[in-house]
Amino acid sequence: MNALSDSRCVVLGGGGFIGTNLCRSLVGKVHTLRAFGRRQSFPDALKDVDWIPGDFTDASAVAGALTGCDTVFHLVTATTPASSNVDKVGDVRSNVIATLQLLDACKELGVKRVIFVSSGGTIYGIPETVPTPEDAPLNPITAYGISKLSIEKYLALYEHLYGIEYRVLRVANPYGPYQTALRNQGVIAAFVHRALGRKPIEIWGDGTVTRDYVYIDDVVEALELAAEHSGKERVFNIGSGEGRSLNEIIANLEQQLGQALEVNRREGRAVDVPRSVLDVSRAAEDLGWRPRTCFSEGLAHTLRWYKGLGHHQS
Amino acid sequence: MNALSDSRCVVLGGGGFIGTNLCRSLVGKVHTLRAFGRRQSFPDALKDVDWIPGDFTDASAVAGALTGCDTVFHLVTATTPASSNVDKVGDVRSNVIATLQLLDACKELGVKRVIFVSSGGTIYGIPETVPTPEDAPLNPITAYGISKLSIEKYLALYEHLYGIEYRVLRVANPYGPYQTALRNQGVIAAFVHRALGRKPIEIWGDGTVTRDYVYIDDVVEALELAAEHSGKERVFNIGSGEGRSLNEIIANLEQQLGQALEVNRREGRAVDVPRSVLDVSRAAEDLGWRPRTCFSEGLAHTLRWYKGLGHHQS
Repeated sequence: MNALSDSRCVVLGGGGFIGTNLCRSLVGKVHTLRAFGRRQSFPDALKDVDWIPGDFTDASAVAGALTGCDTVFHLVTATTPASSNVDKVGDVRSNVIATLQLLDACKELGVKRVIFVSSGGTIYGIPETVPTPEDAPLNPITAYGISKLSIEKYLALYEHLYGIEYRVLRVANPYGPYQTALRNQGVIAAFVHRALGRKPIEIWGDGTVTRDYVYIDDVVEALELAAEHSGKERVFNIGSGEGRSLNEIIANLEQQLGQALEVNRREGRAVDVPRSVLDVSRAAEDLGWRPRTCFSEGLAHTLRWYKGLGHHQS
Repeated sequence: MNALSDSRCVVLGGGGFIGTNLCRSLVGKVHTLRAFGRRQSFPDALKDVDWIPGDFTDASAVAGALTGCDTVFHLVTATTPASSNVDKVGDVRSNVIATLQLLDACKELGVKRVIFVSSGGTIYGIPETVPTPEDAPLNPITAYGISKLSIEKYLALYEHLYGIEYRVLRVANPYGPYQTALRNQGVIAAFVHRALGRKPIEIWGDGTVTRDYVYIDDVVEALELAAEHSGKERVFNIGSGEGRSLNEIIANLEQQLGQALEVNRREGRAVDVPRSVLDVSRAAEDLGWRPRTCFSEGLAHTLRWYKGLGHHQS
């Protein structure tokens, strides 16, 4: 595989949370960098990046964005776990079929490697083992998780049939700068946004729902390592390896802000598994990756970034 | 769950090989029986069955066929392993999306249980363990196998979200009466057809490709048991549990016919895994099912049936 410095990269979904952070890190590190997506959440953050606007379901637009690239970062997720269960057919069309069109274009255009961000939080379903390793049973309770699973299998098929290399990162719950609070994307963004705006925090259930929160810089590092990785494994959990409840996040946030926060509690949701924490030992062993940012530090960075942004604008 | 005798059943794909045999067995055993499909391979065989012609991708036609039924046998496969790899998007549309439409109709219409025929021969890919148990890794090397895998996961999702019960039978290579030799459906049908027609048998590769051939009456029995099953397992391998090479089939056929057969050998195909044999102990323990027909006996039944049919007509 190419060294990253020789790579001609395209980031699909480059305008979103992970994409914005990845592009900012790749600028100057790679031979060529291009980003493709429907919109940029933070256009100023990407002003040094070659931006191609387009919809992921538009096969010819995607093929255009790929031309001349050898490395594809596929970060597109057209649905959310909750929305996917409402329209399962739409979920298949916008995620699975659009990815098959992408892979056919990769085959035509001679792309060497695809790095795909899968879902560490939904692909296992209600886990039997916590922390959950990559070879645990995959029993998603959302159509979102099933689509991610299907895409992982198609990536393996395209490597088998056509030699297109792939790596899958099953990312836990990423958080940090450039995550928007608007589309219910991440609880930390939502909590910080509301706390700084002096609005009550809203949570589903009793606050014991536990997730594995991983700081975005660590996720970006894993993506870059995956682009250069030459080991035998294809699928890696990327998380902190530690569980944290909503109540713990709120307590940590109160401590850092030095104030009590008002919390409104709403009924639990069927799409939420009670506890999701990833076993990240495979990434340590085979990818040479470890989560470096402890939660308090990541939360402090995130708070600082939101304060700099002027949270009241969004 | 209902006893079979109280069930109102619809067989989707009722005109095909497994469907024709299943319908013939269910007639008189169940409260109501309906069959749905594009065409009947053997219309005379289904003259006592309420037949509804229609395409599985036509959601309203499928919903019409389901109305009033509590038990759905889903035997539709719109593609083959080889064709699925040529048009992967078409495979998703005709199998996965059409099945999601079916499941949405099941939810609307109050269907209690769906019994789905999955693929024991393709869902595991190149197996690490032979005979292969149900909890082995699922790494299909065909889009066909990935679609079957996705459908299994959606069945679990619909049970989780809406309480629609399901059972999956991962059927190995079924053979017997009413299998047509025309669409490259089964090697035994093709071999018998050509042997009786005094034409050379064609095989891919050196004849060592090994499969698990299961007689159709045993498959039908498994489907009926799955309709009444109340144990905790959902997914069952259905096969003979024994491997048999193409060369062994030809030798057995030569013995039963008392004559040597001419064989043309063609190049091996990428979609063929070298060896596929299922571990069927779970079906024995939890479903109370065992393969009863030994291979020589099943082959003799099949030969007798083809001779009665007048093989020269098809």
